[in-house]
Amino acid sequence: MTEINKETLSNTEYEFSRDESILKIVKYIDNNDQTKLNIYISELHNADIADILQNLDPDLRTTLVKNISINFDPEILTYLNDSLRDELVEILDIKQLASNAKTMDVDDALDIVEDLEDSDQVTFLENIEEEDRKLIQEGLKYPEDSAGRLMQRNVVALDNQWNVGQAIDYLRTNKKTLPEDFYEIYLINRSNKVLGTVPLGRLMGSKREIKLNEIKNSKIRTIEAKMDQEEVAYLFNKYGLVSAPVIDENKILLGSITVDDVVEVIEEEREEDILKLGGVGQTDLYNAVIDTTKSRFSWLFLNLLTALVASIVIGLFQASIEKVVALAVLMPIVASMGGNAGTQTLTVAVRALAVKELTPSNAIKIVFKETFIGSINGIIFAIIISLVSIYWFENTLLGLIIGLAMIINLVVAGFAGIIIPLTLVKIKIDPALASGVILTTITDVLGFLSFLGLATLFLI
Amino acid sequence: MTEINKETLSNTEYEFSRDESILKIVKYIDNNDQTKLNIYISELHNADIADILQNLDPDLRTTLVKNISINFDPEILTYLNDSLRDELVEILDIKQLASNAKTMDVDDALDIVEDLEDSDQVTFLENIEEEDRKLIQEGLKYPEDSAGRLMQRNVVALDNQWNVGQAIDYLRTNKKTLPEDFYEIYLINRSNKVLGTVPLGRLMGSKREIKLNEIKNSKIRTIEAKMDQEEVAYLFNKYGLVSAPVIDENKILLGSITVDDVVEVIEEEREEDILKLGGVGQTDLYNAVIDTTKSRFSWLFLNLLTALVASIVIGLFQASIEKVVALAVLMPIVASMGGNAGTQTLTVAVRALAVKELTPSNAIKIVFKETFIGSINGIIFAIIISLVSIYWFENTLLGLIIGLAMIINLVVAGFAGIIIPLTLVKIKIDPALASGVILTTITDVLGFLSFLGLATLFLI
Repeated sequence: MTEINKETLSNTEYEFSRDESILKIVKYIDNNDQTKLNIYISELHNADIADILQNLDPDLRTTLVKNISINFDPEILTYLNDSLRDELVEILDIKQLASNAKTMDVDDALDIVEDLEDSDQVTFLENIEEEDRKLIQEGLKYPEDSAGRLMQRNVVALDNQWNVGQAIDYLRTNKKTLPEDFYEIYLINRSNKVLGTVPLGRLMGSKREIKLNEIKNSKIRTIEAKMDQEEVAYLFNKYGLVSAPVIDENKILLGSITVDDVVEVIEEEREEDILKLGGVGQTDLYNAVIDTTKSRFSWLFLNLLTALVASIVIGLFQASIEKVVALAVLMPIVASMGGNAGTQTLTVAVRALAVKELTPSNAIKIVFKETFIGSINGIIFAIIISLVSIYWFENTLLGLIIGLAMIINLVVAGFAGIIIPLTLVKIKIDPALASGVILTTITDVLGFLSFLGLATLFLI
Repeated sequence: MTEINKETLSNTEYEFSRDESILKIVKYIDNNDQTKLNIYISELHNADIADILQNLDPDLRTTLVKNISINFDPEILTYLNDSLRDELVEILDIKQLASNAKTMDVDDALDIVEDLEDSDQVTFLENIEEEDRKLIQEGLKYPEDSAGRLMQRNVVALDNQWNVGQAIDYLRTNKKTLPEDFYEIYLINRSNKVLGTVPLGRLMGSKREIKLNEIKNSKIRTIEAKMDQEEVAYLFNKYGLVSAPVIDENKILLGSITVDDVVEVIEEEREEDILKLGGVGQTDLYNAVIDTTKSRFSWLFLNLLTALVASIVIGLFQASIEKVVALAVLMPIVASMGGNAGTQTLTVAVRALAVKELTPSNAIKIVFKETFIGSINGIIFAIIISLVSIYWFENTLLGLIIGLAMIINLVVAGFAGIIIPLTLVKIKIDPALASGVILTTITDVLGFLSFLGLATLFLI
């Protein structure tokens, strides 16, 4: 309800300029003008307050939060990434935060509570209303990242036998307890099973005496509370849903998920995929230098190990390199091309797995296809690199050898690029996270091994 | 409207199993049972028909499309990626397709028309109703990927002076012409300027005599028709919008964008980012082998060129390598660590640019931060690799040299990883596409140059 009050404050279009806002805030802080600062902040959309907090220097951020802590709307936290959220929770008083959470939707409150440390969780729950506490505790019982954690409990569920007039009267009478956002009403029977949904637009367009039954969608897409949020996002995206009823294993209505929560999930999941493919655990743009360094270190360390493995392989052929130093000059090419070709396949595969385009039913076909593409590109690039090498080092045999190594490495790269993520999914490891490092180890080792090995066999 | 009819066909929950559906379809096709096939397809959700088409072998896909072409709902095309869409349009009769488009929303029709070849576009437009043709032609005047292309033109815009009762009566009277999906009504004045929005939920909960004015959101987020769809998606995501009015430069209401279209945009934009970072232009999972090979070739060719540049650098130091072959063994490590560290920074930067977390106002700070992180990780990994090299080759000077090269390369990698995407954005080149190849060229060249150069100076 906070939202609505804010929106109706004045009669102007709402426009947000981050830079201007920050200038104003800094001025109020410099002048020590707490009252004006708090009024100004209260007029901003919570998403914009979060935006500002993200873009302030850590010191200024702390000062600002301390200055507005009494009025701090917990919903702001839901717009922040995890590390910033933790930072702010440290500064804020949990009791105060809980008492500011009164007007909050239960799904948003749950979103905050689930990330709190145990002791803070207890404090928070002790200081909110009993009804909300119960719902949040129920929510915490669902697995992390499940539909149960995402759903709002406040839904409009009406008797399947009612007509449009009864529905409208009900909504008017219960105006105060309606959910902040809802786009459909759910029709239920006496045992709380969902029998259909009626979009509000259709309800509005129908005469009072028409039965809800007659205008309902009965082919409904329900969501089990235990469903993973990635699956929820997939369904919303695929079918263009705006909201969907959440049910338990007995098909009893529990709550509702709306598309705005799902948009957030989609962003989160995609962000995870992009960052993991790039070797970063989570956005660390706003983290302190020390945290960022730490989070990047482990990935780089893993890469050092794989680079060392590749070096050991090269070390096996020191005698050959001493005789034909051109081998040292050319060897990174084979490894690099394998890595890049494999990464292409890998990226397509990880993405296709995320959006369910790559499935057990077409996996084998795609494996063959990718390996085949690897062969074709392998042959083409073999010819190119052979010609270049022959011209450069005036050594036909060397050219043939690097060509052969290129074919071998690109075929394996294509195969590995698709088989690695498929295997990881099968053994329930996130393919976005682990595929890349396994792939480059294979293409590096094989790149050096095939080229230097063939050279040692035929050239030396 | 098709949608609604389908949904009310029977009273069961709608569940889709791709494998079962494909089995059924193959059976109908094998039995040459066109009638049953068409009935079965007509009962499926268009998103599911698209899903099936994506997962069939190209031959079977062609057969299926030919068998259902008379009833083929053009909306199915909107669920398919571009390459499949083109493939299907080749098979389908454009006239037939146009005449099947009668019940379609204009924004969906526009989505199809904009991708057609010129002659097909003319045929399609000639065979739809005049009113729709006009709206589509207007839509085509907006830039590609702009809000104007995305919006639906059919909106519910009511007089700002009306009350709830008048609004409800209007909706009931105009039931047949209401948009398929709408979640808000827009309040306008006589000159068609938007003065506020009323969410349907709030409208439903209010008594007939209440003025729309009193329950409207007046701080509204309007979208200019020329706004890029990425910006539209950003606003919907940031503020959790469900729909927003689209206006022209004089603030006159033109149409409305709803969140389901935006979810698609978000998916598209993210997909683009992920794939481009991985060196792939677009999803080619369903493409024919020859197309996929072609689309991947150019990227690999570019990589071959950069690998050759790196080889030329190594070639400058052949004499040194001949003397100390350990250089050849160790040199890939420095290059590889630089590439990986730079990619980490780059990924965070590209992602942060996409979600507007990296902006001119914090860019300089982040550049310093990333370079600093590069230095710290550089020092740590310098120590590790120095110790390993000293132990491995029993050569202290070699260890110091590789350590120094590691520091140089990681500092530059951190700096380049952030400065490259920032520069590309400034000169309006997509950072996701071009950053990676520029970065690895730099880290490869510098990795080999610094290590082999320092070794030649101090070791040989």
